[in-house]
Amino acid sequence: MNDAEISAAATLEPVADVAHRAGIPAEALIPYGHHMAKVDTASLAGPGQNGRVVLVTGTNPTPAGEGKSTVTVGLTDGLNLLARADDAPDAWAGKTAMAALREPSLGPVFGMKGGATGGGYAQVVPMENINLHFTGDFHAITSAHNLLCALVDNHLHRGNELRIDPRTIALKRALDTNDRSLRQTIIGLGGRTESVPRESGFEITVATETMAVFCLATGLEDLKERLSRIIIGRTYDRQPVTVGDLGLHGAQGAMAVLLKDALKPNLVQTLGGSAAFVHGGPFANIAHGANSITATNTARRLADVVVTEAGFGADLGGQKFMDITAVAGGFPPAATVIVATVRALKLNGGMSPEDLDTGAEHGDQPSLEALEAGVANLARHLENMAAYGVPVVVAVNRFPQDTEAELDWLTGWCARRGVPAAVADVWARGGEGALKVARRLVEVLPAEEEESGWHSLWTDDMTVAERIETVVTQIYGGAGVEYTPAARYQLDQLVAEGWDHLPVCMAKTQYSFTDDPAVLGAPEGFIVTVRDLALRPGAGFVVALTGSVMTMPGLPRTPAADSMDVDSSGHVTGLF
Amino acid sequence: MNDAEISAAATLEPVADVAHRAGIPAEALIPYGHHMAKVDTASLAGPGQNGRVVLVTGTNPTPAGEGKSTVTVGLTDGLNLLARADDAPDAWAGKTAMAALREPSLGPVFGMKGGATGGGYAQVVPMENINLHFTGDFHAITSAHNLLCALVDNHLHRGNELRIDPRTIALKRALDTNDRSLRQTIIGLGGRTESVPRESGFEITVATETMAVFCLATGLEDLKERLSRIIIGRTYDRQPVTVGDLGLHGAQGAMAVLLKDALKPNLVQTLGGSAAFVHGGPFANIAHGANSITATNTARRLADVVVTEAGFGADLGGQKFMDITAVAGGFPPAATVIVATVRALKLNGGMSPEDLDTGAEHGDQPSLEALEAGVANLARHLENMAAYGVPVVVAVNRFPQDTEAELDWLTGWCARRGVPAAVADVWARGGEGALKVARRLVEVLPAEEEESGWHSLWTDDMTVAERIETVVTQIYGGAGVEYTPAARYQLDQLVAEGWDHLPVCMAKTQYSFTDDPAVLGAPEGFIVTVRDLALRPGAGFVVALTGSVMTMPGLPRTPAADSMDVDSSGHVTGLF
Repeated sequence: MNDAEISAAATLEPVADVAHRAGIPAEALIPYGHHMAKVDTASLAGPGQNGRVVLVTGTNPTPAGEGKSTVTVGLTDGLNLLARADDAPDAWAGKTAMAALREPSLGPVFGMKGGATGGGYAQVVPMENINLHFTGDFHAITSAHNLLCALVDNHLHRGNELRIDPRTIALKRALDTNDRSLRQTIIGLGGRTESVPRESGFEITVATETMAVFCLATGLEDLKERLSRIIIGRTYDRQPVTVGDLGLHGAQGAMAVLLKDALKPNLVQTLGGSAAFVHGGPFANIAHGANSITATNTARRLADVVVTEAGFGADLGGQKFMDITAVAGGFPPAATVIVATVRALKLNGGMSPEDLDTGAEHGDQPSLEALEAGVANLARHLENMAAYGVPVVVAVNRFPQDTEAELDWLTGWCARRGVPAAVADVWARGGEGALKVARRLVEVLPAEEEESGWHSLWTDDMTVAERIETVVTQIYGGAGVEYTPAARYQLDQLVAEGWDHLPVCMAKTQYSFTDDPAVLGAPEGFIVTVRDLALRPGAGFVVALTGSVMTMPGLPRTPAADSMDVDSSGHVTGLF
Repeated sequence: MNDAEISAAATLEPVADVAHRAGIPAEALIPYGHHMAKVDTASLAGPGQNGRVVLVTGTNPTPAGEGKSTVTVGLTDGLNLLARADDAPDAWAGKTAMAALREPSLGPVFGMKGGATGGGYAQVVPMENINLHFTGDFHAITSAHNLLCALVDNHLHRGNELRIDPRTIALKRALDTNDRSLRQTIIGLGGRTESVPRESGFEITVATETMAVFCLATGLEDLKERLSRIIIGRTYDRQPVTVGDLGLHGAQGAMAVLLKDALKPNLVQTLGGSAAFVHGGPFANIAHGANSITATNTARRLADVVVTEAGFGADLGGQKFMDITAVAGGFPPAATVIVATVRALKLNGGMSPEDLDTGAEHGDQPSLEALEAGVANLARHLENMAAYGVPVVVAVNRFPQDTEAELDWLTGWCARRGVPAAVADVWARGGEGALKVARRLVEVLPAEEEESGWHSLWTDDMTVAERIETVVTQIYGGAGVEYTPAARYQLDQLVAEGWDHLPVCMAKTQYSFTDDPAVLGAPEGFIVTVRDLALRPGAGFVVALTGSVMTMPGLPRTPAADSMDVDSSGHVTGLF
C-alpha cells in the first residue's frame, strides 16, 4: 500500500476524543470536519506543564529522501507507546508526547509529487485534507498578504502621500501555487485610472514575510506588532516605510482580522493515535522553517515532550531552530534527533544516484566504502548540534533497500563515537519501529526539573557580520565569508540604520554545507559568498542570501496535477 | 445597534441542532466550528421533497440600498413564523422555508464598507465568519483557477505542444482581493528559464468562469465536465483549446480535487432560527449572479419553500435566474418577490441623493411626486417578471426615513394594479416584520401539486442574436440592439463554430434598463450596444457585454480595511 492507501484504510478517532485525551477541554475545540480542529488557546486552563522540546533534524537532504517528518511522527508514537509499556523507563512511564509539524503548501502538492504529512505507518491524518486546503491557514495568510499589497498600490494610485519610491518596493504578492510565470511581472498598466505601472512579482505564500511573522508570533498582539514592522519599501529619501505607516493607523489591524482564526493551532492525530499540531509552514530557506510558535507552545502546555522538526538539514533548519525559533518562542530545546539514512550518506560519500538502487552490491565492500566516506556529513552535523549544549541522538531511518550490514555499520559508527543511535523502522512499523530511538532519547533527555543546557551560538552583542561569520565557520565548517559589493553596501546600511543587532536568517542551498549544491560530504576551507542582505523587521531578522534562492517554484514538465482526479463519490486518485 | 453588534448579541443554536430540525442526518454534517457546516448531499436520505423556489429580486439598485438579502432572510423567517402561527393559512400550516444565498467576497468586505449577509434582525449568522473566510469555498475556487492558469503558462514554457497563441489567452488569474493594479499586467518576464512573456491580468474570483461553473454544476461529474469545456485560448490556426486538452487527460481532474469539498453547500442559520444555505457567489454581471445550484437543489430536498435571490435588479439577476439558472438547475420558480423601497423609487423619479435624507419634506408633495414618477421603474420590473408565468409579490422594504404616507401610497399603487404587496419591516423586526409579505406570498404560491407556470422567454431554437434581442426589447424595454464591428465579427464566429444555440448572459450596468448607468426610471426607445461577445462554454453561455464591465474592482481612497482591528481576545472592530 502507498501512503494514501494506508491513510485511507486507517480508522480515525473523532478529534474530540483526541482532544480529550490530550487534555484539551471541549470548549477550546473548534472542529473542522470530524478529524481536524483548531484549538482556542485562550480556553485552555491554567499555564499547564512545560513540555520539553525535542528537535528532529537531519543530514543534508539528497534526492534519496530522508524522512524527517516520518521520523517525527513515528518517534512521537514510539514515545507514547514506550510510556505505556510494561518495561517503560522510570523517568518516562506514564508520560505523553505530542508532535508539532509544519503545514503542507498546495504548490508542491500539485507540482512535484510528494506530501508533507509523513509516510507509511508514520503519518498525520487525515492526510488528504491536511495536504489540500486543511483548515485554510495558508489561504488566510495569502489573503492578508495580498490585501497589504493592494493597499500599497492603492496608496501609490491615490497620490502617494508617503512618497514611496515604487522602485524600492520589495514586497511581492503571493499565491500558494507553483507559478513560474509570475516571478517577474509588470503591474499597474492601463493608464491613469489603473494604478501606477511598476516592476513586481509573486512569491509562493510560504516565502512571504507574512508567513514568517505568522509562525514567529506568540499571540495576536505580537502578530500585529510584527506585521506593523514589515518594511514595504522606501521613500525617495531612502527612509523605510512600514505596514504601520499605511492608512489611518497601519494595515496590521485588517491583516490580523484575516489571520486571527488561522493563528489558532490545528489539532490532528497520528496513525498511532498521538495528538499532533500541524500549523504554519515558512520556507526553511529565506525564513526559519519551523512550525508556528503558537503550536509548539500550546503543545508544551499539554504534553511532557513536544517532538518538532525544522526544514532541510541541521545546518539550515537545525541552526535556525536553535538560534532563532527557540529564542523567539522562549523554549530551550531539550534534545536533538538527527535523522540519517544509509542512502543519503552513500550519496554524500560519492556514490551516484543511479548506483543506489542496483541491489546486488548493497552491503558489500563498495557500498560500505561509500557509507564510510559519507558519514563525515553526519559527523559534522553531530558536532554542530552538540555545540548548542543539547544532547543528540541519531535515528537511522530504515529504507527497504538497506542491508543489515549497512545499518549495523552505521549504528556501530555512532556507538564508537559515544553517540546514542538506533534504527527507526517507522514507515513500515509506525511507533513500534521507533521504540529503540525513543529509549535512546529518554535516556539522554533532561528530567523536568533540570534546566536544558541549550544556548545560542550568538551573543546579544554580535553584529550581523559576526553572526554570519559564526554560522559559516562553526556550523558550515567554512574558512570565511565574502560579500559582494551590493551586500557590503547593504551591510553598511544596516549598521547606519541601527539594524545591526538583528539575528540572521541564512539562505543557502540545503544540499551542501557550502553555497554550492554540488559539493557534498563535509568540505573544508571554502568561502561562503553573501550576495544580498534582506531586512525583515517583522520576522525580526536579516536574511543573508548566498547563491540563488527561488521564492516562487515552477511546475515540472509533467506536474503531479496531471495524474489527479476525483470521482463522483469524492474519491481522489493520484494525489500521492 | 449596528449589524455586527446585533449579530454578536444573538444566541446561536449549534449547527447540529439547526441541521436536525432541517431534516439533515448527523452523518451528513461536516462541522466548521460550532455554527457552520458543510452538508454531504450524498448522505441525505432519499430524493426528499420538491421544495418550491421563490426568487427575491428588486428594482434597479441605487446608492440608497434596497436590502434584497435582508428581505430574503427576513421573509424566510416570516414564512416559518407564519407556518407555526395559530392563524396560519391552511395551505402553509406546518410547512417550512429555507433560505439560499450567495457567499460574500473578501474583496468588497475590505474595500467598500458593507457585508452580504443581510442586516439588522434579518441576518444569516455567524456574520463575521461568513463575511471573512467562511468555509474556504472562494479560496478553493481561487486555487483551482490559478492552478489552471499556472498549467497553461507551464504548457507555453514547456514547448507549447498545443500551439496556443499566447495573445489569445483570455483566461486571467484570480484573487479575492480588490486590486486595481493587477487588472493589466505583463507576466513571464526574465528570459528563457522564467516562462513566456505575455500580456495578462487578474480578475476578482467571483468574476471567473470557474466560479460560474462551480455555481451552475449539479454535482462533481457535471463540474468536471463543465470545467473541461472552458476555453483557455486559441491555436495559431484559431481553433479553441480547452481545459480538457491540457496535460494527459485535461486539468479538470486536478481542479476538481481542489473543489470537491467546496462544492458541498454550507449550512448556517438566520437570526430567526431558520436554516439557510450560503454557497457560491458569481458576479451578477458577467455571470448569472445566483447562489449554487447544489445549494438550491439540496434546500429543495429539505424544505417546502426555498427563498433565494439573484444579484442586482430584476432586469439583470431576475432575467438570468429565469432564463439561465432555473434551466440549469431544473427547478421551475414558483413565485417572484420584487423588493422595492421608497428611497430607490424616489431616486428613479428624479430626486437627487442629497435630497433623500433631508427629513422634513418626506411624505409631502415633492416627495410623493418623485415616488410617483419613479414607480415606473417598479412597474416595468413587475411586467417583466410576470412575463415568465410566475406570480409576483412586491415587498416594500421599510427604511427608517420612510413616512407612512409614502409607504401607503406605494402599497396602494400596487393594490390598484392588482399586485399583492406589503411593507416588510425586517431590518428592525426580523421575521415578524415579514409576516404580511409572507401571507401575500403564500396566497399566490402554487400548491405543491400544481405545476409552476414558469417558462423561459427564450425558445431552444433561438440564436444568440435573437436571445439578445428578446431581452433588450421585452425586459429592458429598448427599441433594438446594435453591435460594434468587433462584436459583429464575434457573432459571425459563434455561428461558424456552432455556438449560436447557447444561452446569453447579459453584462449591463445594474443601475439602468439601458446600457447607460445615468438613465434611471423606465426609459423607452433606446438602443443597446453590444461591444463584445465572450464565449464561456464551461458556464454554458455567451456573455454579451454592453458598456464597460469591471472584473477587478479597485480600493477606494479610504478602504474599509483602514478602520479594522482585532484585539488580543480576538474581538473584531470596524468590520461593518
